[in-house]
Amino acid sequence: MVEANKEILRVDSERLKGWFEELSEIGATTQGGVSRRALTEADLAGRNWFKVKIRSCGLELWEDSALNIGAKYSSLGASGPSVMTGSHLDSVENGGRLDGALGVLAGLECLTRLKELEVQLKRPIEAVSFTDEEGRFGGMMGSQALCGKLSAGYVERAKDVDGVALSDVLRSIGVNPEGLYTAKRSSDSIHRFLELHIEQGPVLGKEEINIGVVESIVGLFNWRVRYVGQANHSGTTPMHMRADAFKGLVCFASAVDEILKNHGTPSSVSNIGKVELLPGAANVVPGQAEFTFEVRDSCGATLNLLADKLADAATDIARRLSLQIQIDSMAEIAPEQCDGDTISIVESAAADLGVTSKRMVSGAAHDTQNMIALAPSAMVFVPSRGGFSHCPEEATSWKDICNGANVLLNAIYRLAC
Amino acid sequence: MVEANKEILRVDSERLKGWFEELSEIGATTQGGVSRRALTEADLAGRNWFKVKIRSCGLELWEDSALNIGAKYSSLGASGPSVMTGSHLDSVENGGRLDGALGVLAGLECLTRLKELEVQLKRPIEAVSFTDEEGRFGGMMGSQALCGKLSAGYVERAKDVDGVALSDVLRSIGVNPEGLYTAKRSSDSIHRFLELHIEQGPVLGKEEINIGVVESIVGLFNWRVRYVGQANHSGTTPMHMRADAFKGLVCFASAVDEILKNHGTPSSVSNIGKVELLPGAANVVPGQAEFTFEVRDSCGATLNLLADKLADAATDIARRLSLQIQIDSMAEIAPEQCDGDTISIVESAAADLGVTSKRMVSGAAHDTQNMIALAPSAMVFVPSRGGFSHCPEEATSWKDICNGANVLLNAIYRLAC
Repeated sequence: MVEANKEILRVDSERLKGWFEELSEIGATTQGGVSRRALTEADLAGRNWFKVKIRSCGLELWEDSALNIGAKYSSLGASGPSVMTGSHLDSVENGGRLDGALGVLAGLECLTRLKELEVQLKRPIEAVSFTDEEGRFGGMMGSQALCGKLSAGYVERAKDVDGVALSDVLRSIGVNPEGLYTAKRSSDSIHRFLELHIEQGPVLGKEEINIGVVESIVGLFNWRVRYVGQANHSGTTPMHMRADAFKGLVCFASAVDEILKNHGTPSSVSNIGKVELLPGAANVVPGQAEFTFEVRDSCGATLNLLADKLADAATDIARRLSLQIQIDSMAEIAPEQCDGDTISIVESAAADLGVTSKRMVSGAAHDTQNMIALAPSAMVFVPSRGGFSHCPEEATSWKDICNGANVLLNAIYRLAC
Repeated sequence: MVEANKEILRVDSERLKGWFEELSEIGATTQGGVSRRALTEADLAGRNWFKVKIRSCGLELWEDSALNIGAKYSSLGASGPSVMTGSHLDSVENGGRLDGALGVLAGLECLTRLKELEVQLKRPIEAVSFTDEEGRFGGMMGSQALCGKLSAGYVERAKDVDGVALSDVLRSIGVNPEGLYTAKRSSDSIHRFLELHIEQGPVLGKEEINIGVVESIVGLFNWRVRYVGQANHSGTTPMHMRADAFKGLVCFASAVDEILKNHGTPSSVSNIGKVELLPGAANVVPGQAEFTFEVRDSCGATLNLLADKLADAATDIARRLSLQIQIDSMAEIAPEQCDGDTISIVESAAADLGVTSKRMVSGAAHDTQNMIALAPSAMVFVPSRGGFSHCPEEATSWKDICNGANVLLNAIYRLAC
């Protein structure tokens, strides 16, 4: 028996690799990625695989009414709230093999390893797979449900991009949709939450750092902006007689960088990811330009200031170019701060393992940002090769994966002692 | 009998209006426009209507192997090459009622009027309806065929946007596709060509001028430009680590105005009418931005200079932003100059009718730009209310239409004397 908190533990790298290879076959795509959209056949197969694996590891299996799946291990004498880790098994269409899956498999490995080492822990430990983190039906259903953050009417309204209703899908697999509202865990059942995830960005790789320790998860606002001018024949309408809606977009896009520089923080980012011009013909001056615009930052006050400045700029441009403008707010998510004590434990675990780490902001959304409402939480990032994410090219070296899993293992170990 | 060239003639406004109303019923849309895409059922009905009308007016009817339809009138003693007028009966989908149709109907009215006035002319006169001016199958098939400008292989390759082959359509109505190559008229069969058309732009209306006398038809180049960067998660990729393809487009669009101002002419216009970002998601930095770009000018040398400067600018931007760039030339059309003598005759006809006129550049393509290869040519424009074109809102006051038809009538009369 290992004496608690005195020793550096290591995961069974071969076992973890074997699981990873097994799981990667489920929903595998020809391009080398996986397609396990939540509650599709492939995702259901992945979920079953996980349940079988939990049992075969001799761990306690639970599944809640939001279809979150958990493994639990209580060493002799462990009691009270759990130290929980986890992530998600679902993926985007033709996504990477690690996004989500890494955190679930590493969690299962940590529990299994601590069990086989017969480590004595004060607290139970749990490894969870949250349902639909990638938002097939909007939001992050599983962790929102578990945290009691599901908005009223969500279950009734939720549909995927093809118009398939969540409630129909749930009923088709024998699940009561109303159950989603009752999946809330009490906050006194969880001591801490810790998620291992790939960075999904290029920073750790570029700076050659092994481990990212997330201190905050950015908030964001997401707008749909529409400039409306006048569609006209592009040959017969002199430049000065046009009301070119695309020109509005170009002026706005040109203004954004300066506004972020003057009013944002170093972590401020923005994106215009989708543009549609109407009527959309080579020889017609665009009468309408509709585009998505999002801004992310780790500071809520900064996000509010940026939203004001950017809306003012967008409106000024419309006035100057004789366009109409409509700004619809599609999403607004507040930034969340990770727990300082948990961060320190992760950092010291990394240091003791001899791997480099840096504190960073998570620019992507994660189940952790919901879990923060229930328990002090943090995240461990491992490098994403080239920053690729949500695509088959997504990759992390096996050495980096082991570093992450070992940091997770030792942090859980220390938190549970 | 009217003595040639001594008198101001006027069209029969009521007859012309009656024809216009009859024709507008064919392919009428619920929004008040017409859909007579070339060689569709509605277009074939419009063509039949025109043939019946030619015969009922007592005019000679011809139809060539490119399905161009003509009316011909030779007064006693008329011989040699014809004075030809005409335009097209086909329309875009849900287009306006006047675009093309006005020039055909006014031509028919001119012949009918000159016949009924028993005007003695030296030359035959013809009114033609060209096939597919709106380019359902690409280009301006009818006038290109009549001028011998149809490119080799056109007939074999030509398809509409739905993939329907021109050759199949022709065979289905009993027409030999190969006939298109043999429709060329000899240039000594046409003395002058004159086309009446709506302006399709806002200039005459804004300046309150009755008649536009076209002195040149702009040339153009049309590119498909593709910036390629790297698609990345928009939350996790810091601004300075991105290769944002949309940023390439924004910088290029911002540079265009200055380049046109410095190297173009007052008639230079440009347009970015269609944009597609890939993957096209709100939270993904665009890895690819593909857009259409066109520039029009009445001076060929200016177009060449602008193409060089703009390609240089587009490439510099790619280099600066670490993007790749691909520029595909989709179309290149040389500007065409109208005939000075014909222009003068149109101007004096307008002056004698007491209507105002101004010389202008046609920013849109017309059958006239093909006919210029066969005969000295010019165009008469009437105002387009609000500049609307290719839409049901397209409109011209009946007074303006009569002014245009009367100018056409008197110009034909003078050219044919």
